[in-house]
Amino acid sequence: MLAWCLLPWISHARYTLGVRDSLMIAHSFHKHPAFGPAGGMHGATYTCDVEFQCESLHPETNWVLDIGLALTLLGKVLEKYNLKNLDELFGTQVMTTTEFMARQIHDDLYQLLQEQCPEFEGDICVKLWESHKAWASYTTTTTSSKK
Amino acid sequence: MLAWCLLPWISHARYTLGVRDSLMIAHSFHKHPAFGPAGGMHGATYTCDVEFQCESLHPETNWVLDIGLALTLLGKVLEKYNLKNLDELFGTQVMTTTEFMARQIHDDLYQLLQEQCPEFEGDICVKLWESHKAWASYTTTTTSSKK
Amino acid sequence: MLAWCLLPWISHARYTLGVRDSLMIAHSFHKHPAFGPAGGMHGATYTCDVEFQCESLHPETNWVLDIGLALTLLGKVLEKYNLKNLDELFGTQVMTTTEFMARQIHDDLYQLLQEQCPEFEGDICVKLWESHKAWASYTTTTTSSKK
Amino acid sequence: MLAWCLLPWISHARYTLGVRDSLMIAHSFHKHPAFGPAGGMHGATYTCDVEFQCESLHPETNWVLDIGLALTLLGKVLEKYNLKNLDELFGTQVMTTTEFMARQIHDDLYQLLQEQCPEFEGDICVKLWESHKAWASYTTTTTSSKK
Amino acid sequence: MLAWCLLPWISHARYTLGVRDSLMIAHSFHKHPAFGPAGGMHGATYTCDVEFQCESLHPETNWVLDIGLALTLLGKVLEKYNLKNLDELFGTQVMTTTEFMARQIHDDLYQLLQEQCPEFEGDICVKLWESHKAWASYTTTTTSSKK
Amino acid sequence: MLAWCLLPWISHARYTLGVRDSLMIAHSFHKHPAFGPAGGMHGATYTCDVEFQCESLHPETNWVLDIGLALTLLGKVLEKYNLKNLDELFGTQVMTTTEFMARQIHDDLYQLLQEQCPEFEGDICVKLWESHKAWASYTTTTTSSKK
Repeated sequence: MLAWCLLPWISHARYTLGVRDSLMIAHSFHKHPAFGPAGGMHGATYTCDVEFQCESLHPETNWVLDIGLALTLLGKVLEKYNLKNLDELFGTQVMTTTEFMARQIHDDLYQLLQEQCPEFEGDICVKLWESHKAWASYTTTTTSSKK
Repeated sequence: MLAWCLLPWISHARYTLGVRDSLMIAHSFHKHPAFGPAGGMHGATYTCDVEFQCESLHPETNWVLDIGLALTLLGKVLEKYNLKNLDELFGTQVMTTTEFMARQIHDDLYQLLQEQCPEFEGDICVKLWESHKAWASYTTTTTSSKK
Repeated sequence: MLAWCLLPWISHARYTLGVRDSLMIAHSFHKHPAFGPAGGMHGATYTCDVEFQCESLHPETNWVLDIGLALTLLGKVLEKYNLKNLDELFGTQVMTTTEFMARQIHDDLYQLLQEQCPEFEGDICVKLWESHKAWASYTTTTTSSKK
Repeated sequence: MLAWCLLPWISHARYTLGVRDSLMIAHSFHKHPAFGPAGGMHGATYTCDVEFQCESLHPETNWVLDIGLALTLLGKVLEKYNLKNLDELFGTQVMTTTEFMARQIHDDLYQLLQEQCPEFEGDICVKLWESHKAWASYTTTTTSSKK
Repeated sequence: MLAWCLLPWISHARYTLGVRDSLMIAHSFHKHPAFGPAGGMHGATYTCDVEFQCESLHPETNWVLDIGLALTLLGKVLEKYNLKNLDELFGTQVMTTTEFMARQIHDDLYQLLQEQCPEFEGDICVKLWESHKAWASYTTTTTSSKK
Repeated sequence: MLAWCLLPWISHARYTLGVRDSLMIAHSFHKHPAFGPAGGMHGATYTCDVEFQCESLHPETNWVLDIGLALTLLGKVLEKYNLKNLDELFGTQVMTTTEFMARQIHDDLYQLLQEQCPEFEGDICVKLWESHKAWASYTTTTTSSKK
């Protein structure tokens, strides 16, 4: 295939593959006063954008990750939460904010990826849109030994 | 102001003003088997697009409707449902689909408009996005006597 | 369920359910000079928005159509064209413009719907986005006997 | 090319071609009290979506209109207003609302189309997005003799 | 609440909360020749996306920041510029580009946040969309002592 | 102009200018089994978002880069690939994934920028949307000597 080298003045490069899916959940903030009217039972559609980031492409396929696999793995993770009441899944002590759910999905996806695609060595960013004007994300950087 | 007449070959014209807001609700489909896993308690963010349609502009302001008023009225209507559990609002016999909620919001808005802006004589379309890949709408045409 | 009647001043009402999917195709315009550089082999991603329109909701489920069925039927239709070379499917005499493809998908979907969901009596609009700044659609109205 | 006939139960069909461009303008509402703080000099980016609608495709090219021509004609019309102060163009008596500008662009485009593409016999809809949560449009239907 | 620890191979993590609002302004580039036709008086709608970034969530609420507070603070900042002529606010020596305004909004928001929410220790990114095809942003990293 | 200094607790700042364009291409993955049905000839519309990043604005114009120049340079680069069959441009050994194309466009743009705008000292990110639910990007950091 291609024998690429970086342009001379470039010290660092990063590729990203991104995929989008969505999930619909119910939850409350357990009548905690800090959340005002959102303390009671309500719900959300989260549009879920995941980015897989790494420093070089697969030498044969020129991809970060098989996009079909990326969508399948994300679908499996979202199935845990989609069409559920998060109060039942996480109990009455946990505030299931959009930030919290971004991390949950991130961590679940990371572990699934370790099992089913261990050759992927990179970072993940999970972004959840909760409305047309608000979103949250969780991004991690892996240690260099993992990379 | 302007004394407009239609271009000669035009038989009908329509102006639209549109505004967007959103709401977050919980609901179930009462374990009705037709809804599969959506039968249980879950939720949604609805991005709500409303269009106000009429045939001529206000002669002094050149608007369909005051956009600030449009946003305020829509906000008042959405407050009835935002951050609520629709199962509590509508009882266990009603399937609160996106289509159904589009009509509810339409009818509420129509009545509020009658009270607070009776000079508006036109049609309303309410469109609710339930995810990045699905939506529903409800549109009406008023009788000519109303127009 | 609900015994709804229209608000008194409303003469006509219409519900819509919409779903989105996408497909990726190659095609040419057979070097026809009217298409300039687009005459040669190139391709497109079409984001495909379909709207199903009718005048009343299903009395038990309050839906226009089962949204899962809508997505499944659309997926089946798009499978015919997705990841294909339209020049091979339609031959060298047909200009497979976005307008043309909107109609193809419309007609295929209509026929599938007749077979698999004959109780749906309404209209279909198919809209294909070919880029962030261009799209085409095809919409039909059925005869009243069908309605 | 294709000898299409409508599916038997379809009484009416319509094709649409849509294109998007944008313009940036300054204007005021001449300190008219109905507009509140928008009475003074401010401005807007209008994302401009135009739809050209007709009942049949060009028999040779299968298009509603040459998309390159559509974009060129729209560009020419927007040039009249882009990067301008509408108060200078329309004087101190005209309220240059988004609704008003949708009609201006519509009428200009209609006349340009008459001159440069008289074979197009159809309708035009101009939609202007003024923000992420507000828009206006102007749509016309031509008389049947024109069609 | 939760006693989370990072997955073993993760060296760094970051949460983000994002909110969207918009503003409409007039300005010129003081007839500076580098700006061509944009040198004269015109205007823009800026869709304003702000991201608040930090390394850990609030221990009780699991949020980066109260989303209601985030929207309120952003609203207060935008009020300074919304529906204004930037030439009057910044004088005839300043080129009020989208880049410049992203920084203004960032700095204003930072200072307001210091006063009203001093417990937030993190970074801010302000992104302004000036059209459907152009945007600018300004992002900062705080010193570790602040973090 | 302005003599700005960073807010005291800020250690690093970055400006970004972003522009959007699109291109339509045909390609195959040379029947490589890893790509399944995408191995054959098909195509894509890539919505192309480019971000130019740097640490300070031009002292006279307050811009990262002339936005007109940014759009022109991007247009020139995309012309190489737009409405082409990538299999003809890159041969039968190269997998022209979205990731690969993001890098091509990045490298081409970098070189054009070196020639036509050598005073720009910053980084570039190229993001290609291949559908409403998938995208890829390529981002680089330049060495400090270049900065």
